[in-house]
Amino acid sequence: MYRFTCDYEEGCLPEILRLMEQTNYVQTPGYGMDEYCEKARGLIRNFCDAPEADVHFMVGGTQANLTAISAFLRPWQGVLSAATGHINVHETGAIEATGHKVLALESPDGKVSAKALKAALDAHFGDPHSEHTVQPGMLYISYPTESGQLYSLSELTELSKVCRKAGIPLYLDGARLSYGLTSDACDLTAKDIARLCDAFYLGGTKCGALFGEALVITNEALKKDFRYMIKQRGGMLAKGRMLGLQFIGLMEEGRYLSAAQKANRQALAIRAALEEKGISFLIPSPTNQQFPILTDKQLAALAPHFSWDFWEKMPDGRNAVRFCTSWATKDEAVEALVAAVQKL
Amino acid sequence: MYRFTCDYEEGCLPEILRLMEQTNYVQTPGYGMDEYCEKARGLIRNFCDAPEADVHFMVGGTQANLTAISAFLRPWQGVLSAATGHINVHETGAIEATGHKVLALESPDGKVSAKALKAALDAHFGDPHSEHTVQPGMLYISYPTESGQLYSLSELTELSKVCRKAGIPLYLDGARLSYGLTSDACDLTAKDIARLCDAFYLGGTKCGALFGEALVITNEALKKDFRYMIKQRGGMLAKGRMLGLQFIGLMEEGRYLSAAQKANRQALAIRAALEEKGISFLIPSPTNQQFPILTDKQLAALAPHFSWDFWEKMPDGRNAVRFCTSWATKDEAVEALVAAVQKL
Amino acid sequence: MYRFTCDYEEGCLPEILRLMEQTNYVQTPGYGMDEYCEKARGLIRNFCDAPEADVHFMVGGTQANLTAISAFLRPWQGVLSAATGHINVHETGAIEATGHKVLALESPDGKVSAKALKAALDAHFGDPHSEHTVQPGMLYISYPTESGQLYSLSELTELSKVCRKAGIPLYLDGARLSYGLTSDACDLTAKDIARLCDAFYLGGTKCGALFGEALVITNEALKKDFRYMIKQRGGMLAKGRMLGLQFIGLMEEGRYLSAAQKANRQALAIRAALEEKGISFLIPSPTNQQFPILTDKQLAALAPHFSWDFWEKMPDGRNAVRFCTSWATKDEAVEALVAAVQKL
Amino acid sequence: MYRFTCDYEEGCLPEILRLMEQTNYVQTPGYGMDEYCEKARGLIRNFCDAPEADVHFMVGGTQANLTAISAFLRPWQGVLSAATGHINVHETGAIEATGHKVLALESPDGKVSAKALKAALDAHFGDPHSEHTVQPGMLYISYPTESGQLYSLSELTELSKVCRKAGIPLYLDGARLSYGLTSDACDLTAKDIARLCDAFYLGGTKCGALFGEALVITNEALKKDFRYMIKQRGGMLAKGRMLGLQFIGLMEEGRYLSAAQKANRQALAIRAALEEKGISFLIPSPTNQQFPILTDKQLAALAPHFSWDFWEKMPDGRNAVRFCTSWATKDEAVEALVAAVQKL
Repeated sequence: MYRFTCDYEEGCLPEILRLMEQTNYVQTPGYGMDEYCEKARGLIRNFCDAPEADVHFMVGGTQANLTAISAFLRPWQGVLSAATGHINVHETGAIEATGHKVLALESPDGKVSAKALKAALDAHFGDPHSEHTVQPGMLYISYPTESGQLYSLSELTELSKVCRKAGIPLYLDGARLSYGLTSDACDLTAKDIARLCDAFYLGGTKCGALFGEALVITNEALKKDFRYMIKQRGGMLAKGRMLGLQFIGLMEEGRYLSAAQKANRQALAIRAALEEKGISFLIPSPTNQQFPILTDKQLAALAPHFSWDFWEKMPDGRNAVRFCTSWATKDEAVEALVAAVQKL
Repeated sequence: MYRFTCDYEEGCLPEILRLMEQTNYVQTPGYGMDEYCEKARGLIRNFCDAPEADVHFMVGGTQANLTAISAFLRPWQGVLSAATGHINVHETGAIEATGHKVLALESPDGKVSAKALKAALDAHFGDPHSEHTVQPGMLYISYPTESGQLYSLSELTELSKVCRKAGIPLYLDGARLSYGLTSDACDLTAKDIARLCDAFYLGGTKCGALFGEALVITNEALKKDFRYMIKQRGGMLAKGRMLGLQFIGLMEEGRYLSAAQKANRQALAIRAALEEKGISFLIPSPTNQQFPILTDKQLAALAPHFSWDFWEKMPDGRNAVRFCTSWATKDEAVEALVAAVQKL
Repeated sequence: MYRFTCDYEEGCLPEILRLMEQTNYVQTPGYGMDEYCEKARGLIRNFCDAPEADVHFMVGGTQANLTAISAFLRPWQGVLSAATGHINVHETGAIEATGHKVLALESPDGKVSAKALKAALDAHFGDPHSEHTVQPGMLYISYPTESGQLYSLSELTELSKVCRKAGIPLYLDGARLSYGLTSDACDLTAKDIARLCDAFYLGGTKCGALFGEALVITNEALKKDFRYMIKQRGGMLAKGRMLGLQFIGLMEEGRYLSAAQKANRQALAIRAALEEKGISFLIPSPTNQQFPILTDKQLAALAPHFSWDFWEKMPDGRNAVRFCTSWATKDEAVEALVAAVQKL
Repeated sequence: MYRFTCDYEEGCLPEILRLMEQTNYVQTPGYGMDEYCEKARGLIRNFCDAPEADVHFMVGGTQANLTAISAFLRPWQGVLSAATGHINVHETGAIEATGHKVLALESPDGKVSAKALKAALDAHFGDPHSEHTVQPGMLYISYPTESGQLYSLSELTELSKVCRKAGIPLYLDGARLSYGLTSDACDLTAKDIARLCDAFYLGGTKCGALFGEALVITNEALKKDFRYMIKQRGGMLAKGRMLGLQFIGLMEEGRYLSAAQKANRQALAIRAALEEKGISFLIPSPTNQQFPILTDKQLAALAPHFSWDFWEKMPDGRNAVRFCTSWATKDEAVEALVAAVQKL
């Protein structure tokens, strides 16, 4: 059985395990105030070319999102997001539990357009009775999106402009950032993201770490007292060094990108095999997640040897599913899947 | 430099690291639904002799506390706690951030007495205008307490009786549970705790794991839908298996207790050396935390070679400090400290 | 200038003012524990034929909604509502500020159908990973809806059945209840509502009172400790008797219904005049709110003498607006408006 | 039976009722945007000599407190208050329900001293691990306090200085402000309060209105978007004009002060009678609340003809109780009570 259900089904890059072993008995202060976290922060600032940025290590993605969003908003504000955004549909109301509404913007591809953003802002701030509705206080986007889509440099630049004009932060959820940055379809860099966003996180969990996400805050106004929020929301790990070690392992020798590049290549090989069979896709994805639409019969043929994630039932009865590769996917698994697809 | 500042300054028991390595490339489902978590749950149920208990793995202690407390209370209820309880003083308002007041009970030694508990309940429920004050909805205790104290079996039994009569859950924070259970002064067992409490957690982070706490819910009424809360509060780790592996490593071959027993022995050796020098203590502790009161001069003599945690300034100018041992403390470190104390 | 902007532009029924004057110097206990509140509760129980119901007086509608919804839900649950529901669009995130997501159901006419409700419940509870999404915990409907629509007895019965089968409360926001109950299009009674819903409120503010809404809880399981919630959310009026007096004034001699009946009649007269001119409506309404679609020129002609509420811009440039009558609308105002419409 | 239980047992000043009658059929916009609210705001700005202040009308005291405090704080901050402060003990956790801890300062007389305030701020901001505890974000005081005490001009000036140096707002709960300002023991003015505090409210409910409190915000930084908060917390009255009318009635012709002055005079007459009988007091109060300590037998003698509020049981078995006068207390009631006291 080869599993393609998601990109968090294995442990971590072996270099990270090695670091953990090498440092196991070294004594350090807790709560992220240790030398490893400090080193990892430096590597990340360097990676993003953002020497003044604050970097905080968070345990997971939902926690990074809820901590950042609730820290950045005032109580009467909500966060704009694509209706399909992770915070709107897959976090059990984590944002609302901090008191804030997710202001959902309909979007055909899971991306927020500058036009839709502007329309939402104009509708609110142009309303003479605006205090009766939630004030849009920031924009949340994911990169790649939940369906593997990428913003272009020009799209991100436009969003950033609209946000800055409106005085609201632009926050980017980079749970799968490495898969986006290394996609052939990507025309932007970590530096662009750091420059255009006010805060964002580099995913660790789905990109080769055991756990952990690196939240980068570039907007000076959002930096103050952030560690209080991490503690309050339950995210300040006593042995914070573990998170530092994850990101040292990811960042050193370019592993963060090279591991993702390989996974993208594998995903495209699977895509090519599916396309060759005339199988269509829910939405074309240039990253490590692929969303083919398969018949019950086709799925039954694959089921004995492969796993995937069910995505949604199509009106015609077929099934949109997700096949995911990761830093850990073996070539033999991909080859087996490609061969099986060819026999469908 | 030997650090005695706290019990989370190193990595983890080597057996845990080994498990992580051995299983690194095994593919499993995420979010704690894997075979390792399942195995760890069984080991813990067995350890507590609570075959029907629900066991959930939480990332850290503050998160375990805030998730459990906010799940168990209704919105108009608060949680009773010793004024010195961790949730009241060292979690940056994590409980209040979920909407609940911590109802602090004054206590000379950090323990809640059945008498004080009963008085608080009577005061509230006997008030004809009780709806103007926060309703006590559960009791939080820590074992050992923040200053290393233990409840006796008889004390815990009394608390449990009062809680059950009032219909409110008794919740025990066992961040350092293993140090309590293996103390010479302890007359209760994990089974007693499971039997007398409605929910509690076995600390992992401070007891030899990289991270993670195991929340055990024995009260049927508190079990429903708890995984929703873990997800909502940001605590559902994608690679949940890591937490399972921590507790397999701790539970197998009795390591959870044996590692703590050694640390307790070391702490008592340090205590003995201090007592021999006539040094007094803030409060006598039978566990791995010791709270001697030292002069500035004495601290200055120790500072080049040892670290500790500052606790509080005494009225006479001396300093109450904390020396902590852990599963990882080396005998040579203890010997060096003992020798240094003898020269004070 | 005659104002038709909304139904809360005047004071209150003169009989209420008289009651306030007559009782001004009578001394009573505070917080709703007085004889007037008690009498009003009896009148309302009688009105709804719900002798066992709990009745609480709330200051306003948003407060009634947020207090009831946050009291009834568990933290991981959200409230289902039509996307156009008042709690979803016009309360500045009041529900989310209590920690709960509003789960919006698209609806062409602002009503929730049993089918849409069932689909939402099935989608959630049929999902093997349901803990990653907000659990639907109750249903909110408004009667009449925000656009003046009514549920039929059969529709409400269906909704009630689905809710009871799923074990979730059905809550009805009756801000304009009296206008609904007295509409020619209404085929249900207050008794039906009390029987089919678990909780609902009889609007006072928009139905002739100075302020105040009467929350009726018929589901035994939702009654406990509700007064704590009123106090905590800032809604427990010290001089609670004022709210009791409002509802004595409304309920006595059938004023609650007769005042609304007159307003409905006036609204239909305005509708008839508009229809005669061939003016179309956003949505046909059988109650005191009418939503004609007028050109800029038509509005300009009316503007010197009448006020209304702007609703939305139509794609063709015309304007959907709202004309509202109330218990206080004078016949001369209606006659003037009808005459002006005839000249459009 | 004469009731002295509290100062909200009657309706309102007759002039307010008259205003409500006179304006009952005038049509105005809702939500406090009407001419009466505007006029009342002007009268209050004038009363406080604070021409630039923002004035908002709130329905009640708990709501004023929770709305202001949650608007002014950031999520990781708490509000400092005397342990006996209303927000800490008598609001059912309303502040915690907004996510913030009340940081209680012990105080013998219910007042916060500049020294205690400074100590709390120093303890927090001087702690190298401050992010593990709640950050003090504002100071709440009540004037008069819950036990009728007054801050002197010099005390308030000191508090204001410490707050401004620390950059935290000083907020004053003036539920009984008029009784404080007209006490013989008062050496400050409404203008002083407006100058020294960042926000405060003038109580209406307990000072002669049917309901309503006037929140005055003088600190520019706290003004922005406050109406959103009022709406979100359920406090934006549709017929907001009612609140405007209350404060026109209170402010015109100096009624706010003259009504309280009379009540203070009556309270002092009762105090004098009690003192003459050698009865001691829990705490001496120069305002409309008096806290004598009476035996069971003395209370039994008074019970047939008078009501009061039970305050607390004394160690010797006697009872501290509260006798309250108000704008509505009749001289005959005071005379009857004085006569009864003389016979004790």
